Amino acid sequence: MSIGDDAAVVNVLPGMQQVLTTDVLVAGTHFLADGDPVAIGHKSLAVNLSDLAAMGAAPKWFTLNLSLPEVNTNWLQAFCRGLFELASQWNLSLVGGDTVRGPLTIGVQADGEVPSGTAMLRSGAKAGDRIYVTGTLGDAGAALLHQRGTLALEAADFATVKARLDFPTPRVSEGLALREFASSCIDISDGLFSDLGHIVTASAIGARIMLERLPASTVYRKYFEQLGGWNTAITAGDDYELCFTIPASRRTDFEQLSATWHCGATYIGDVETEPGVRVVDQFGTDRKPSTGGYEHFAAD
Amino acid sequence: MSIGDDAAVVNVLPGMQQVLTTDVLVAGTHFLADGDPVAIGHKSLAVNLSDLAAMGAAPKWFTLNLSLPEVNTNWLQAFCRGLFELASQWNLSLVGGDTVRGPLTIGVQADGEVPSGTAMLRSGAKAGDRIYVTGTLGDAGAALLHQRGTLALEAADFATVKARLDFPTPRVSEGLALREFASSCIDISDGLFSDLGHIVTASAIGARIMLERLPASTVYRKYFEQLGGWNTAITAGDDYELCFTIPASRRTDFEQLSATWHCGATYIGDVETEPGVRVVDQFGTDRKPSTGGYEHFAAD
Repeated sequence: MSIGDDAAVVNVLPGMQQVLTTDVLVAGTHFLADGDPVAIGHKSLAVNLSDLAAMGAAPKWFTLNLSLPEVNTNWLQAFCRGLFELASQWNLSLVGGDTVRGPLTIGVQADGEVPSGTAMLRSGAKAGDRIYVTGTLGDAGAALLHQRGTLALEAADFATVKARLDFPTPRVSEGLALREFASSCIDISDGLFSDLGHIVTASAIGARIMLERLPASTVYRKYFEQLGGWNTAITAGDDYELCFTIPASRRTDFEQLSATWHCGATYIGDVETEPGVRVVDQFGTDRKPSTGGYEHFAAD
Repeated sequence: MSIGDDAAVVNVLPGMQQVLTTDVLVAGTHFLADGDPVAIGHKSLAVNLSDLAAMGAAPKWFTLNLSLPEVNTNWLQAFCRGLFELASQWNLSLVGGDTVRGPLTIGVQADGEVPSGTAMLRSGAKAGDRIYVTGTLGDAGAALLHQRGTLALEAADFATVKARLDFPTPRVSEGLALREFASSCIDISDGLFSDLGHIVTASAIGARIMLERLPASTVYRKYFEQLGGWNTAITAGDDYELCFTIPASRRTDFEQLSATWHCGATYIGDVETEPGVRVVDQFGTDRKPSTGGYEHFAAD
């Protein structure tokens, strides 16, 4: 710890529970070592805020562990700009950290709070609940495909989706509002199919996703065929949208609220008793996301 | 986060403050990549518990960020053994973490709690307070010198001091007890001279250390000349003992208590008004720790 004392002392208000999350980002695995340091700073905090959002927690403070191969002042300043712009947006205080010499690695722990007993879990979904996602899916995946040379986007289109990959917007205020409505929630870091699978497992239920309901951006729709149809939207990660379930009784109230959200929320499917995640097309035919990645869904 | 939900929910009792600390250990910088994984697991948690001890905080839970170049089951099992043996000793729960592929790096955040307003800081020392340290100083430094080939210890002696370097004992229960006595506290990770300097700066006071009072182990005394006299004890880090100040009015009560401590506590000097850290020998002559490291103190 480098800030004043050996450790930081923080206050948790009575009636509140604390919510802890941590993620580590490694150069070469989670970001390019020569990538934009502003984006790296933003994303290293954003992925943690997204976890707090999925729990319905209000972000409070964070710690930062930085391992750096060398002291590069320009890099550090840009990194801190990205990090602290997002932190100040949520009134989040850096309360401690450690900086060491080593391979470029960034560890952030973000702590938030919820009124006791109100944290959203993955385990509360019930058959009959509706499944929703915020925002749109697959944009970050499209940017990654372009960066890897698998997909050729026009420059303006690439810039649009690259902003979603590099500067994900954690759905913090949406997460806070969802505490009153959602029976379960998760953030989409690994892809809808995979992350919804965690809700299905934790809640011991099943899910049915209707492909034609998935929310996609204008850019995504423009390259729909090259993106393997819905495959990228459903299997690619890094979108950091929220996926959650709403009981039927709360649906009308929730949709009234979510209509006011800038990012919106889309009804994409239903919770069922039959285990597993099913994906159906507009004809009701079961479709399986391709495990080879980025090909059209294959019919069973 | 890999444990159940996107984040962990923990309870902080009313009237308690939370204390957060984090440290990152990088292979090649903080430990040898081919070093004993049990020791690496132990030390990565121990250095954090030592920070909590210095604040007088009771350890409660921790998160672990692991970056591993490959999945080596034997290494991981041994690492976890070292880590969890120490964690279970203090009833400390692992509440979350992240494991990624990358250069061997270990980030631990440990959280503890104190009754509100009772955390020990570096800033409370007053002129007239006595300065104490727990345990003995310089053993970890001696082990490091041997490993670097600068010092030749007999095998049994090396084993003794290597255990202090590899398996430091965080002074958790001593830190908890010190809350009632100490006006300031820090843990010795960088060396007594340097860490006491932090108390001196934060408290805006000065300190006078009496060399002949420094506590040293039998092994240290055996190699006293080769260790540069008191130089290793006062400048070498990694001891993870506590250095703290006790007001004169609490001295008798404190010494009654510390006489029951297994590690003991030794009165090594006094807080003064004159800024800076002074080191004096048995004749009262000012001595300066050699900055070249591991040589005899030079007279001013």
